[in-house]
Amino acid sequence: MAMDGYRGFLGLLVAALLVGFLSVLFTLIWVLHYREGLGWDGSGLEFNWHPVLMVTGFVFIQGIAIIVYRLPWTWKCSKLLMKSIHAGLHATATLLAIIAVVAVFDYHSARAIPHMYSLHSWIGLTVVILYVLQLLLGVLIFLLPWAPLSVRAAAMPIHVYSGLLLFGTVIATVLMGVTEKLFFALKNPAYHSFPPEGVFTNTLGLLILVFGALIFWIATRPQWKRPKEAGSILQPNGGAADGMEGPMVVSVSSSADRSDAELNSDAAARKRTFGLDETGQRSTM
Amino acid sequence: MAMDGYRGFLGLLVAALLVGFLSVLFTLIWVLHYREGLGWDGSGLEFNWHPVLMVTGFVFIQGIAIIVYRLPWTWKCSKLLMKSIHAGLHATATLLAIIAVVAVFDYHSARAIPHMYSLHSWIGLTVVILYVLQLLLGVLIFLLPWAPLSVRAAAMPIHVYSGLLLFGTVIATVLMGVTEKLFFALKNPAYHSFPPEGVFTNTLGLLILVFGALIFWIATRPQWKRPKEAGSILQPNGGAADGMEGPMVVSVSSSADRSDAELNSDAAARKRTFGLDETGQRSTM
Repeated sequence: MAMDGYRGFLGLLVAALLVGFLSVLFTLIWVLHYREGLGWDGSGLEFNWHPVLMVTGFVFIQGIAIIVYRLPWTWKCSKLLMKSIHAGLHATATLLAIIAVVAVFDYHSARAIPHMYSLHSWIGLTVVILYVLQLLLGVLIFLLPWAPLSVRAAAMPIHVYSGLLLFGTVIATVLMGVTEKLFFALKNPAYHSFPPEGVFTNTLGLLILVFGALIFWIATRPQWKRPKEAGSILQPNGGAADGMEGPMVVSVSSSADRSDAELNSDAAARKRTFGLDETGQRSTM
Repeated sequence: MAMDGYRGFLGLLVAALLVGFLSVLFTLIWVLHYREGLGWDGSGLEFNWHPVLMVTGFVFIQGIAIIVYRLPWTWKCSKLLMKSIHAGLHATATLLAIIAVVAVFDYHSARAIPHMYSLHSWIGLTVVILYVLQLLLGVLIFLLPWAPLSVRAAAMPIHVYSGLLLFGTVIATVLMGVTEKLFFALKNPAYHSFPPEGVFTNTLGLLILVFGALIFWIATRPQWKRPKEAGSILQPNGGAADGMEGPMVVSVSSSADRSDAELNSDAAARKRTFGLDETGQRSTM
C-alpha cells in the first residue's frame, strides 16, 4: 500500500532503529566495560541489570511498540494481528521494566540502602504502575472484543496521549537515573574532571533523547497513519475491531467550488472541524 | 465564541495554572527556606537563581506561551496580536533561561568548578540554544510578513513538534537538575534518610511533571484549537497572517448519505485523509 512521504519515513525509521540499537549497545558497554558487569547476587552486578533492562525494554522496545502500526509493510496484516503485536511488545517492555525494578530493590535490600527516597524512584515507580494500568486498560478496551464502539472512541485519544506521555516520562526518568548513577559512581576520577566514563555515558543520555525525539516525530505525523480498512467503513459492524471508525465520511473540495453556505455559519464550521479532528486524531494525538 | 468542552478546558486550565503557580512557589520556598536564599555574588545564593528562573521562565511561562492561542477569550483578538503575545512570552522565557545559565556559569567560575561536565548541562545548554533558534525562526517565518504561505505551511508542523519536544526536554532537564542538586546538597542528614528538604523537593519535581502533562493535554486537543478566521478563508490574501489556511474546505456527511464513489478508491481516500490531517494539525501535532 502506498504511503505519503515513504522515503522520509524510511529514513527516520532507520535512524530511530540505529539510535535505539546504539542506546542499548552503549548501555551494555557502560555496565560491562566501565562498571563491574552483570550478575544476580545483590551486588553492583545485580544493580547493573537495572539500566540494561530499562533501556532495552522500557525505552527501545516501548518505542518500537508505539510506532508498529505505522510500518507500511504491516498494513496488509489484520488490525487484530497488529494490535496483538502492539500489546505484546508493550507487555515485553513491562516485564523487563518490572525485572529492572526488582533488581534495584534487591540491590538496595542487600546493601541496606533505603528504598524509594529519590525523585528518580518516585517518578520511576509511578510510571511503571501507570504503564501496567495503561496496558491492562488497552487490552480490555481495544484488544478484547467486548467494549462498545463508543467506549473505544472515547478512550482512544486518552490512550494515545497517555502512551506518549508515559514514553516521554520514561525517557526523563532514565536521564535522571543516569545522572544519579554517574554522581554516585564517578568519585576518582570525579565526574567533573571529564573521565571517559562520564563523557561516554553523557553520550548515551543524548542517544536516548534523540531516540525519543525520532519516535515522537514518527508517531505524530498524520500522513503516516495506518489507513482505515475499507471493510470497516463498508460493513456496519466491520469497524468494531478498529475502535475509532466513526460514522462520518469526509470529502474535500477546492476553495473554488465550495458553496457560500459552507462558510456562512461560524458555529457550523467549528462543529465540522471538531468532528473531523476527532476522527483524524485516531492515532496521532 | 463557543468552545466544545468549555468546562473541561476551564477545569484543566485552572489546574495547570494552580500546579504551575505551586511549582514556582515550591521552588522559592526551596531556595529561601531550605537553601541559603538569593543573591548575585558568585556564592550559592547566585546559584539559587538558576532553579528559580528556570522553573519560572523555562517551565511556567513557556507552558503558558504554548497554550495561549487556546484561551477562548482571546479568539476575538487578531491573530497578529496573539502571535505577538505567544512570541513575547517565549522571548521572556528565553531571557530568564539565559540569566539562569549565566548564574550557574558565574557560580562555577567563582568556585573553580569545571563547566559543562554533567548530562544535565549538556542537554540543558543544547535546549537553550535550540529554543533561541526556534524563537528566531518562529518570528522570521510566522510573525514577520515576508515568508510565503507555502513556507509557513511547511514549517508549521515542525514548529509545533519542536515546541512540544523542547518543552518536554526542558522538564526532563529540570528533573535531572533537581536530582543533581539534592545529591550534592543533602549530606547531613543524607537524601536517603528522607529529610524534609528531600521529600519537599521531590514533591516539587512531581508538580513540574504534572504541569507538563496538563500543558501537553491542553495543547494537543483538536477541539480546543483557535478557530480559523472567516476572513482568512473569504479573502484570497486574508490567510497570509495565519500561515496555515490551506486551499481546502471540508464538508462532512453522515455515512448514510455518502456516495459509493467516495469509497471506491483507497488511494484517493488516503490522499483526502492526508490533506485533511495536514490542515487539521495546524496547532495540534
